[in-house]
Amino acid sequence: MAGPISFISDFGRDDEFVGVVHAVIARLAPSVRVIDLTHGIRRGDIRSGALALTRAIQYLPEGVALAVVDPTVGTARRAIAAATDWGFFVGPDNGLLSPAVAMVGGAHVVVSIENPDMAVPSPGATFQGRDVFAPAAALLAAGEVEIEELGPVVAGEGLKPLLLPLPKVEPPAVHGEVFWVDTYGNVETNIGPDDLAMAGLRPGDPVEVVVGGSPSEAVWVTSFGEVGDGELLVHVDSAGLIAIAVNKGRADEELSLVERLPVVLRGRGTPKAEGPRPPG
Amino acid sequence: MAGPISFISDFGRDDEFVGVVHAVIARLAPSVRVIDLTHGIRRGDIRSGALALTRAIQYLPEGVALAVVDPTVGTARRAIAAATDWGFFVGPDNGLLSPAVAMVGGAHVVVSIENPDMAVPSPGATFQGRDVFAPAAALLAAGEVEIEELGPVVAGEGLKPLLLPLPKVEPPAVHGEVFWVDTYGNVETNIGPDDLAMAGLRPGDPVEVVVGGSPSEAVWVTSFGEVGDGELLVHVDSAGLIAIAVNKGRADEELSLVERLPVVLRGRGTPKAEGPRPPG
Amino acid sequence: MAGPISFISDFGRDDEFVGVVHAVIARLAPSVRVIDLTHGIRRGDIRSGALALTRAIQYLPEGVALAVVDPTVGTARRAIAAATDWGFFVGPDNGLLSPAVAMVGGAHVVVSIENPDMAVPSPGATFQGRDVFAPAAALLAAGEVEIEELGPVVAGEGLKPLLLPLPKVEPPAVHGEVFWVDTYGNVETNIGPDDLAMAGLRPGDPVEVVVGGSPSEAVWVTSFGEVGDGELLVHVDSAGLIAIAVNKGRADEELSLVERLPVVLRGRGTPKAEGPRPPG
Repeated sequence: MAGPISFISDFGRDDEFVGVVHAVIARLAPSVRVIDLTHGIRRGDIRSGALALTRAIQYLPEGVALAVVDPTVGTARRAIAAATDWGFFVGPDNGLLSPAVAMVGGAHVVVSIENPDMAVPSPGATFQGRDVFAPAAALLAAGEVEIEELGPVVAGEGLKPLLLPLPKVEPPAVHGEVFWVDTYGNVETNIGPDDLAMAGLRPGDPVEVVVGGSPSEAVWVTSFGEVGDGELLVHVDSAGLIAIAVNKGRADEELSLVERLPVVLRGRGTPKAEGPRPPG
Repeated sequence: MAGPISFISDFGRDDEFVGVVHAVIARLAPSVRVIDLTHGIRRGDIRSGALALTRAIQYLPEGVALAVVDPTVGTARRAIAAATDWGFFVGPDNGLLSPAVAMVGGAHVVVSIENPDMAVPSPGATFQGRDVFAPAAALLAAGEVEIEELGPVVAGEGLKPLLLPLPKVEPPAVHGEVFWVDTYGNVETNIGPDDLAMAGLRPGDPVEVVVGGSPSEAVWVTSFGEVGDGELLVHVDSAGLIAIAVNKGRADEELSLVERLPVVLRGRGTPKAEGPRPPG
Repeated sequence: MAGPISFISDFGRDDEFVGVVHAVIARLAPSVRVIDLTHGIRRGDIRSGALALTRAIQYLPEGVALAVVDPTVGTARRAIAAATDWGFFVGPDNGLLSPAVAMVGGAHVVVSIENPDMAVPSPGATFQGRDVFAPAAALLAAGEVEIEELGPVVAGEGLKPLLLPLPKVEPPAVHGEVFWVDTYGNVETNIGPDDLAMAGLRPGDPVEVVVGGSPSEAVWVTSFGEVGDGELLVHVDSAGLIAIAVNKGRADEELSLVERLPVVLRGRGTPKAEGPRPPG
């Protein structure tokens, strides 16, 4: 047995989609456990889903990662399964899986799931989560199939990559963008502590957070309690990235921050030699 | 052991209701797995709950279906358990269970759950999900009781039926209504592909979607990609019914569609012999 | 093995926080079951979390209660584990655990979780749910550690108490406040049936519900059906406390009731001898 299935999607919880995927897995692999990572990914937001899976992957028990965020249902992208050192990844080949697969060292084999014997027949349109991905994940998790039995190996090219923006270091500033606003209003950026260090910043330093040209004063802290209630801070969050937060408040509302918005973190750098403005 | 319990309700996830039902089951039947189908059924909406259970039933592992949507708590409807070829159904006898029970071939035995020895005592009002339905489902799933031990057999009459509207075929149109608006804004009707066929329509045909007298042009497709982004379509959805959708959009918002609203799907039929309008 | 883990938090379901805690538990204790009590506690609302856990505790299978509602993350409160007759409690020492621990007879031992060998290392800030509480709960549930291995015993003082308001009986009235508004709009108070009895009230009696000085007529019923649709009632709810409800309606909206709001329940008492107002 390969291990439990960790399941992430944009299905939400209002309909029975998540439950039916669990049901299909339970029929095919009754002893396999399913962990719901989250089903609250914004509809069709491949990048948010990919980032959540990437943040989580190192904590997941080895087994199968089942990920379904699929805005272009019914168009030409493959349904794939990938074998890695960590275990198997199953989902659409639209960039959703690639950052997490890269984080565990890349895929040894990628197959296009096409074997109709391993799909659940549908009375109408294919609901790939239920009909294609759930059975593939269940059979892999139960150790009942070799990955190659699911369909032909995808030669050479591998997984469709996801283009993630890289931060740009221009001392004393780092230009980045918002990766994630969590339920508490904490705002994770694509900037790492190394980027800030390259820009000349150190923990304890004041940091200007610039959003849309408008700067706000913050401090790079290691604990929220280092600033007063309602005050702005940046810190290395629990995923290892620089996040903007407000002690006992919401940074997203304070600074009108949303995912994908550009943000600049700027240190004071070397004090500029600014003399008085020359007359005339 | 009868198998896992598939659990659907209108309890929502904000309170601990769902968790406490799981807890009661875990105490009485520690090795029985519980699959949460959904707890997002609109409060007291028996029909929505019945339709979700009916869409899901063929995918559920054989065992016990525990369904609780119960707007008239405390009034005179029975708490029942029904034995079928598929397994057991447990819930209020208010129509919630009957379509799914019918889909698996009907009930062999229906009992009124009344045995106080199999209920959990409450410090106040009975919370039937926790005190009556959860223990009955747990004991049936664990194979620890015969269904007749739960209470007296309900003679003759059987389950309270749920009146579901039937579509009306009047070529070249079919008159139906909205069964379900899913989280993505796709709109399932009570119309099947056979109804459209009887009205003279075939896949690929243009279809007029008429809501409140106002017609919109759509096409009967087999894949969303057959129409452009933002365009209206009808197709056989993954439950086998005709659904109205917008490629990369929301049909519910586009046409102001909500559950139970009447909708007409109309083909072009035989072209009308329309001459030029007579003068004068 | 100590038993399953019952998990309650204010993490919500939009992010992967709940899933990652499940994942950490599954890695450390693959055979331990996790029951999600609820993750819908309002952000940082210690009292709501404590009350939900207290209402649920008697229904939970013996094992481990993992509770995380922690508004002052990163400040000086202990991470604790407590051993009781029921099983173990794991969470922040901020009052969240103490009412439920008291309900099961108090703690034999309380330790401050500080052993770094039993924590999950973080790439940045500590996410205590994932890094501290989840591993402690998993190891206790699996029976793999003695509670004292998690950290030093907290001497004497025990758990931080939670101050819960007591109702005040002033016949023919009881002064209390709102404990909980559930998803259906039912409003649980901190008043018990004994308090109403001490104020001279009995089931069947009319009761005035006074909110902000404005009285509404209700009846103390044992079943919602004893009043008409849309009418106000009070009853002993399924947790054994007096709740205000509207038959087929929402009491919270009807009376603008929110959690923590003071509310008075008043019987008619002995009729007052009120003569006509004296002239002059």
